[in-house]
Amino acid sequence: MKFPKISEAVVRRLPMYLRFLNELAKSDVQTVSSQDLGRRLDLNPAQIRKDLAYFGEFGKKGIGYDVGYLVEKIRGILKLDQEIRVALVGAGNLGQALCNYNAYLKDNMRISAVFDANPNRIGDRINQLSVQPMEELVRTVREQHVRIGIITVPATEAQRVADQFVEAGVEGIMNFAPAIIKVPSQIRVHYADFTIELQSLAYYLNRGETEEEE
Amino acid sequence: MKFPKISEAVVRRLPMYLRFLNELAKSDVQTVSSQDLGRRLDLNPAQIRKDLAYFGEFGKKGIGYDVGYLVEKIRGILKLDQEIRVALVGAGNLGQALCNYNAYLKDNMRISAVFDANPNRIGDRINQLSVQPMEELVRTVREQHVRIGIITVPATEAQRVADQFVEAGVEGIMNFAPAIIKVPSQIRVHYADFTIELQSLAYYLNRGETEEEE
Repeated sequence: MKFPKISEAVVRRLPMYLRFLNELAKSDVQTVSSQDLGRRLDLNPAQIRKDLAYFGEFGKKGIGYDVGYLVEKIRGILKLDQEIRVALVGAGNLGQALCNYNAYLKDNMRISAVFDANPNRIGDRINQLSVQPMEELVRTVREQHVRIGIITVPATEAQRVADQFVEAGVEGIMNFAPAIIKVPSQIRVHYADFTIELQSLAYYLNRGETEEEE
Repeated sequence: MKFPKISEAVVRRLPMYLRFLNELAKSDVQTVSSQDLGRRLDLNPAQIRKDLAYFGEFGKKGIGYDVGYLVEKIRGILKLDQEIRVALVGAGNLGQALCNYNAYLKDNMRISAVFDANPNRIGDRINQLSVQPMEELVRTVREQHVRIGIITVPATEAQRVADQFVEAGVEGIMNFAPAIIKVPSQIRVHYADFTIELQSLAYYLNRGETEEEE
C-alpha cells in the first residue's frame, strides 16, 4: 500500500481518530459524520474532512463515514496491522508506568523487553516482562526484531542508550529523557518529553495574565 | 508583550531550542548559528531561521544568534518568565515519575499539589509534596492559583478529574490518561498520551517492511 506523504500534524491526529472510531465500533455504530468526530475530538469538521481526504477517504453526504472501513484504513496507514515490537530501557517509575500501557497497545504493538542498568532491578517482573541487564540489549533487540526503542533513563545516560539501540538496529526511538540525542538520520526520534510538553502547553494559557486583571 | 500567532509545530520546537540554548549559556557560549542549532537538534537550518524570524529574531551573518537574548525571548513567548503552578491527579507510577521532573522544571513552572482518590496514598510524600485527597482539589487549586492540571488516572476516571479541574478554574490540562476528555473551549487540552505517541512514531518506521526484504 502506498500513501501520499502526510504532514506531522495529521499523523498526530490519526491515532486520536482511531481511538474514537474504535469506541464507536465497539458500540456497533456504523457511520459517523465529520461533525460528530469534530464535536468529540474538539476539532473543526472541515479539518477532519481535509485530513481524511488526504488518504482518499470521503464521507457520503448525509450519511458520513463508514466506521469499520475508516478504522482499517487508519490502522493500515499507522502500520498497526503489522507486528511492532518495542523495547524499553529504564525500569523506574516512568518505565513501569509505560509497561502498564501494554494493555492498551493492542494492534500488535507492544513492549516486549525491558532493560535496566541497576543490578538490583535485574529479574524484577513488570507485568509479564522480566527486567534484563543492559549487556543483553543488543542481542535481545536483534533476536526479537524490535523496531522501536523507548528511553526512560536520566538525561546523562540517554545518548549511551540511544547508541545501543542504533547498534541493535531499531527504526525509531521515543525519548522520554530530558536530553537531546543524536542518531543517524534514517532513525526517527520522537521526544515524549514531559518538560517540553508542559512548556508548549504554557504557551496557550490565557494570554491576558501579563496584563492587568479585568 | 504581543507576539504573532505561532503555529503548533513551532510552539513544539521552541522548548527544544530553549533546552539547547540553556546548555550553551551554561557553557558560556555567546552566539550560535542556525547550522549549529540544526546539527544538534536534527532540524533544517532554514527551518530554524524561519521559526526564529516568526518573532522578529534575526541572526547576524557570520556571527549567528545571541544566545542570552534568544533564551530571554523564548522564555517570554512560552511564558516561562511567569510563575505557573501545576497540580497533578493520580499518584501512581506515572504521577510519581512526573513529580520527579520538578527538578527540571525550573523557570517558575512546577507541580505544587498532588491528589489521589486512593485513601491509602493520602499523606504519602512525593519529593516535597504530600498527596491530598480529591475532596481538597477544587479548594487547593483555587488557593494556589494553579493554572495547569495534569491527569494521570485510569481512562475511566479521566473525565471526572477534568470536570473538577474545570470547576477549579485551570487554564490548561495535560491528559496522560488514554481517554478523550471534554472541556469548555477556552481551556486548552494537550494529550500526552503514550499510546498515541507510539502510534504516531510507528507511521515513520521503515516503509519497506511490508514489501520483501531487499
